[in-house]
Amino acid sequence: MSNFNLRNITRALTFGGNPLDRASAQRADPSWLAAQAKGGLFLPFWQNRPLVADARIALLPWRGEWEGGICVFLGLEGAQPLFAIDLAGETPPPLDGEFQEMRPAAFVLPARDTAIAGQGKALIDWHRRHGFCPNCGTATVMRDGGYRRACPHCGAEHFPRTDPVVIMLPVLGNACLVGRNARFPGGLYSAFAGFVEPGETMEEAVRRELREEANIAVGAISYHASQPWPFPSSLMLGCYAQALSRDFQIDGVEIADARWLTKDDVRARLAGALEDEMKLPVPIAIAHHLMRDWAEE
Amino acid sequence: MSNFNLRNITRALTFGGNPLDRASAQRADPSWLAAQAKGGLFLPFWQNRPLVADARIALLPWRGEWEGGICVFLGLEGAQPLFAIDLAGETPPPLDGEFQEMRPAAFVLPARDTAIAGQGKALIDWHRRHGFCPNCGTATVMRDGGYRRACPHCGAEHFPRTDPVVIMLPVLGNACLVGRNARFPGGLYSAFAGFVEPGETMEEAVRRELREEANIAVGAISYHASQPWPFPSSLMLGCYAQALSRDFQIDGVEIADARWLTKDDVRARLAGALEDEMKLPVPIAIAHHLMRDWAEE
Repeated sequence: MSNFNLRNITRALTFGGNPLDRASAQRADPSWLAAQAKGGLFLPFWQNRPLVADARIALLPWRGEWEGGICVFLGLEGAQPLFAIDLAGETPPPLDGEFQEMRPAAFVLPARDTAIAGQGKALIDWHRRHGFCPNCGTATVMRDGGYRRACPHCGAEHFPRTDPVVIMLPVLGNACLVGRNARFPGGLYSAFAGFVEPGETMEEAVRRELREEANIAVGAISYHASQPWPFPSSLMLGCYAQALSRDFQIDGVEIADARWLTKDDVRARLAGALEDEMKLPVPIAIAHHLMRDWAEE
Repeated sequence: MSNFNLRNITRALTFGGNPLDRASAQRADPSWLAAQAKGGLFLPFWQNRPLVADARIALLPWRGEWEGGICVFLGLEGAQPLFAIDLAGETPPPLDGEFQEMRPAAFVLPARDTAIAGQGKALIDWHRRHGFCPNCGTATVMRDGGYRRACPHCGAEHFPRTDPVVIMLPVLGNACLVGRNARFPGGLYSAFAGFVEPGETMEEAVRRELREEANIAVGAISYHASQPWPFPSSLMLGCYAQALSRDFQIDGVEIADARWLTKDDVRARLAGALEDEMKLPVPIAIAHHLMRDWAEE
């Protein structure tokens, strides 16, 4: 096996490591779910932002004024049922704490809280944007604690989306290729990425995206780790791609620049030891771990 | 690394190995797409079945009576643009050949034809069931040759779904655990499988599904291969899971039975050398390859 095929990652990635028991078999039972809700704790969301208090997610007993909001079952933590509730309103509902954007919150929350909040965000955001049947246009109703929507008109069933995204680092010997997406904030270089399309394997999507974005030919592709990424509902599939040469040609549209970096350079930059205009991904992103695990091999 | 971590698969799986250039950068340009359609060849579908003639998919020049059908761009084969077209009607349109169910067709078509037909089926089937905006219920319009739908009312954009599914074989020493899904035809035992849910890594979904379906505890999880599976739109993520013991307890609902099989037994059954009531998956399924690659290691 080629030398870039690292051991699978063991460290939990941000938004992974969710400790809840989703109770998939029970949550389809409305009476079971109602009993759980009675003793449940609820993570409030407002405009896709979880409520954070004292650098922890806020888990509160039910309040009557929340009636009618999108409410999803997250799972059991031991015997404690947890839910997420979407609160309406032009301004943040007056609760102790602050409704924080999910991404910055992920930098400060403990891993367990980030994973739970990410699950809640992905589910609530999907319900907010999927209230109608794509098959016939009728308003649908939530079922199974939020893991299904049913159409009362045509009978179609709809399930929360999870969109597989390949994210890959081309490597060759002591160097890896990083790209600056035109949409990135200035100076940020990262791994390449794109959605898997119908009819593709994961590996074929890796090859296609690298050909499209950097016109770089790669040989063996090696899966490394995955990460749920609730912006809005991706499953990041992190891979290494063995470059066949250093030749590349960026598309100039999606990718504005690309550069080969040595392992020493990557290690120094991830450690914050180089002060220049180039930035590498932050630790909440799987791209950071793709680079780090390879550079520290 | 544990001994079940096989080299990544090199053999192309059924529905993989699609040779087309999807021309992602160009297909968003309506005038480019119209020019391609002029010289294009079209694979007709009727009720999700591709037209098959002489054990090949039928690729035909445009016909006026197809106007108004869902038509998607598949890609370029060399310089030849290929499309898929959905034909309406209570009875099969009178064309040379036969509209065959996708699954049996996959047994007889060449790999290239199966991959192209699978891509077409996944896309057309998605458009057939996603004509309305899930955000507001308005009828949407197709864009980008079928890789996007746009809502004229609320402006939301929608992309074809690809649902990640984990499919995994628990292994321990010389044995693997196979299960009989209650929905399977009699005698079929296969790997375990389930949809990845929001907020899960691939590995966490593997653990959850094995806990739910067989109550079996597993250690290291190792990705092996992936496969597009257009029934209707899955991406199968094939894994091995290192069982911690032979203990298991089927759920009795989704899984009706499970058994440990030795490598010799698996090899003999896949080769058709054992004639009893137990059947293992056919070669078009990734489960077949998970078993075979492990048993032949």
